[in-house]
Amino acid sequence: MNKSDIITQDHGGGGKLSYNLISEIILPSFDNPCLSKLDDGASLNIKGEKIAFSTDSYTVDPIFFPGGNIGDLSVNGTVNDISMCGAAPLYLSAALIIEEGFLISDLKKIAQSMSKAANKAGVKIVTGDTKVVPKGAADKIFINTAGIGFIPKNINISGHNAAPGDKIILSGTIADHGVTILTQRKGISFDTNLKSDSAALNKIVEKIVSVSNNIHTLRDPTRGGVSAVLNEIAIQSKIGIKIYEDKIPVKKEAAGICEMLGLDPLYIANEGKFIIFVVKQDADKILAEIKRDKLGQDAVIIGEAVLDHPGKVIMETKIGGTRIIDMPLGEQLPRIC
Amino acid sequence: MNKSDIITQDHGGGGKLSYNLISEIILPSFDNPCLSKLDDGASLNIKGEKIAFSTDSYTVDPIFFPGGNIGDLSVNGTVNDISMCGAAPLYLSAALIIEEGFLISDLKKIAQSMSKAANKAGVKIVTGDTKVVPKGAADKIFINTAGIGFIPKNINISGHNAAPGDKIILSGTIADHGVTILTQRKGISFDTNLKSDSAALNKIVEKIVSVSNNIHTLRDPTRGGVSAVLNEIAIQSKIGIKIYEDKIPVKKEAAGICEMLGLDPLYIANEGKFIIFVVKQDADKILAEIKRDKLGQDAVIIGEAVLDHPGKVIMETKIGGTRIIDMPLGEQLPRIC
Repeated sequence: MNKSDIITQDHGGGGKLSYNLISEIILPSFDNPCLSKLDDGASLNIKGEKIAFSTDSYTVDPIFFPGGNIGDLSVNGTVNDISMCGAAPLYLSAALIIEEGFLISDLKKIAQSMSKAANKAGVKIVTGDTKVVPKGAADKIFINTAGIGFIPKNINISGHNAAPGDKIILSGTIADHGVTILTQRKGISFDTNLKSDSAALNKIVEKIVSVSNNIHTLRDPTRGGVSAVLNEIAIQSKIGIKIYEDKIPVKKEAAGICEMLGLDPLYIANEGKFIIFVVKQDADKILAEIKRDKLGQDAVIIGEAVLDHPGKVIMETKIGGTRIIDMPLGEQLPRIC
Repeated sequence: MNKSDIITQDHGGGGKLSYNLISEIILPSFDNPCLSKLDDGASLNIKGEKIAFSTDSYTVDPIFFPGGNIGDLSVNGTVNDISMCGAAPLYLSAALIIEEGFLISDLKKIAQSMSKAANKAGVKIVTGDTKVVPKGAADKIFINTAGIGFIPKNINISGHNAAPGDKIILSGTIADHGVTILTQRKGISFDTNLKSDSAALNKIVEKIVSVSNNIHTLRDPTRGGVSAVLNEIAIQSKIGIKIYEDKIPVKKEAAGICEMLGLDPLYIANEGKFIIFVVKQDADKILAEIKRDKLGQDAVIIGEAVLDHPGKVIMETKIGGTRIIDMPLGEQLPRIC
C-alpha cells in the first residue's frame, strides 16, 4: 500500500495536508457552499436570523495540563470558533467518548471544568451524549463540543473578507498552549512556569465589534498556529500578507523552549489568542479596546494585508531580510487540542 | 481500586448505569434545566424562535455493515434525535476523529454516504472538524454529528408530556440494527439477509405532526432498545406503561438470532424506528398516516400509558401472564452505534 492511500498524523495537523484532505476528499463529497467557505463556523439563516454553528473534537494528550484540561479547552475552543464569526455564543453541546477503565473522579473534574468554563463565558451546555468504548479503542477521553451563536445583522466577518490595506492585530503572546502541552509529554521535562492560554474570547470580541463596523476577519490561531491561519486568510481573501518578526510577542520561556527543540513559535497552537483584520483607520481604536481587557494586554499590530504576492505570507525578519511563511505541511505536535 | 471508581462498558449502554452516570455525575456538574430534561435534544429559544439542538458520537464497530456504515448512521441518528423533538432538522455539523493508518478510500466512502444521507433527509452539513490521532489511540474512526432544527410554535413534544390514556405506537420491527451489527462481529457468523434499519425519520415525523396536535412524546429506541426508552418515558412523565408482547413486531430472523444468543429484542438498538405517545382519539389517524410511509408500514399500537404503577413498564406476555420490563442495567452489545 502506498503512503498516499492512508491517513497520517500530518492530515490532522491543521497544515497543508489537512487542507488538502479537507479540500480534496471531504468538501467534494459534500459540495456545500457554506462548508466550502472553511471559516471557523458556518453562518446560517434560520427564519431571518443569522446563526453561527461550529464544532470541534478535542483529543489533547495529556488531558490535564498547566492552565487547563480537556474539559475547559473543549468549551473555550468552540466558544472561540463561534466568536470568530463575530457571533455571540449562546449554547453548546458536549459529547464524550470515554475509554473503559477511565477514573470517575477524573470525569467529575473534567465535567466541573466544563461547567465552570461555560459559566465564565456565559454560555449554556444544553445537550450531550456519552459513549464508552472498550479498553484500547480510545485513549482515555475525547470530547466533542458544538456551539450555536447569534450574529447581529450588521456583522459580516469571514476569512474571505480581508482586504489590502487592512491592519493585522494579534491579541497577545503566541505558542503558550502548544509549548505547555509539549513540556507535559512523557520523556520531556522542563522546569517552567508556562501554562496554556486556554480562554474564552467571546467577551473581548463582543467589545471590539461594538466599537468598529470595519472588522473584516477574525480567526484564532489554534492548530498550525499563526502561520496556518495567515496562510488560510491570504488564500481565502486573495491578498498578500506582510508581518514583522520584531512585532510578534512570544514569552521568553516559550521562545527558549522552541529554540532548544528547533520549533518555530509561528507554527505552534494557541487557545486564547486571536487575529484581527481591520481597516487601517480603525486599527488603533480596536487595539486600545483590546488592550483594556486582561486577555488582550499584550496585543499588537503585527502587519498588514497588501496587494502584492496574493495568497502568500511574507515576514520581514529582525535582521532586515524577508522570509516566506509557508502553510505548515503537517503536524509538529500531535494531539495538541 | 474499586470497580465503582472506574468507567465500565455498562456506563455507555444506554441503560440504568448510563442513566446513573449522567444523572449523578454529569448533570450535577452542569445543573441546567434544559439538559436535565434528558430529551433526545434541547429545545432552545433564540430571538423568539424555538430551535432544537442535539448531538451524538458514533463509535459503531464494524464501521461498514449491511444496511449502512458509520457515516450514514451518524447523519440519520442526529436527524432522528432532532425529529424526536418534533422539529424539522435543517443543519448538521460533522466532526471526525480518525486513527492514523486509516484508508483514504474508506474515508471517501464514509464521506459520500454522509452526503447521500444528508441529501435524502433534506439537511445540510455546514461545518466540520477533522482530527487524526496516532495508531492505537482510537479504533479506526469515530464521528460526531450535532444538529439544529426548527420547532414550529404549536409543537410541544417531550419525554415529560406522556399522559395516562395515551396510546403507544411503534413504527415497525425492532432489533434489526443491533442484531445486524452483532452478526458482523469477529468470530460470529450467521447466514442472514438481515440489515440495519438505519434511516432518517424526519419526513414521516413531519407528516404525523401535521395531522395531529395531540402527540405528547416521540422517542427513537436506539441504545438500550424499546425497554430503555419506555422506562425513561415512564420515569420522566410519571406514568405507568403497559405493552402487549403479541403486538411487538420482530422479524423472524432477528427473533431467531436473539433466541439463539439469549438476547431480548426489547433491549436491542434500532436506528430507524420510533415510538409515539398520542392521545387515544388521534391514535388510529396517526397509525394510518405512518403506515402510508415505507418506513412505517409495519407500525402498530403496542400498548398504552396508564395511571397504575407509575415509573414502571409492564408487559402482558403471549401466554397471558405479566412481566416487568426493567431498564436495562448496562450494555448488551458494546459499540452498537
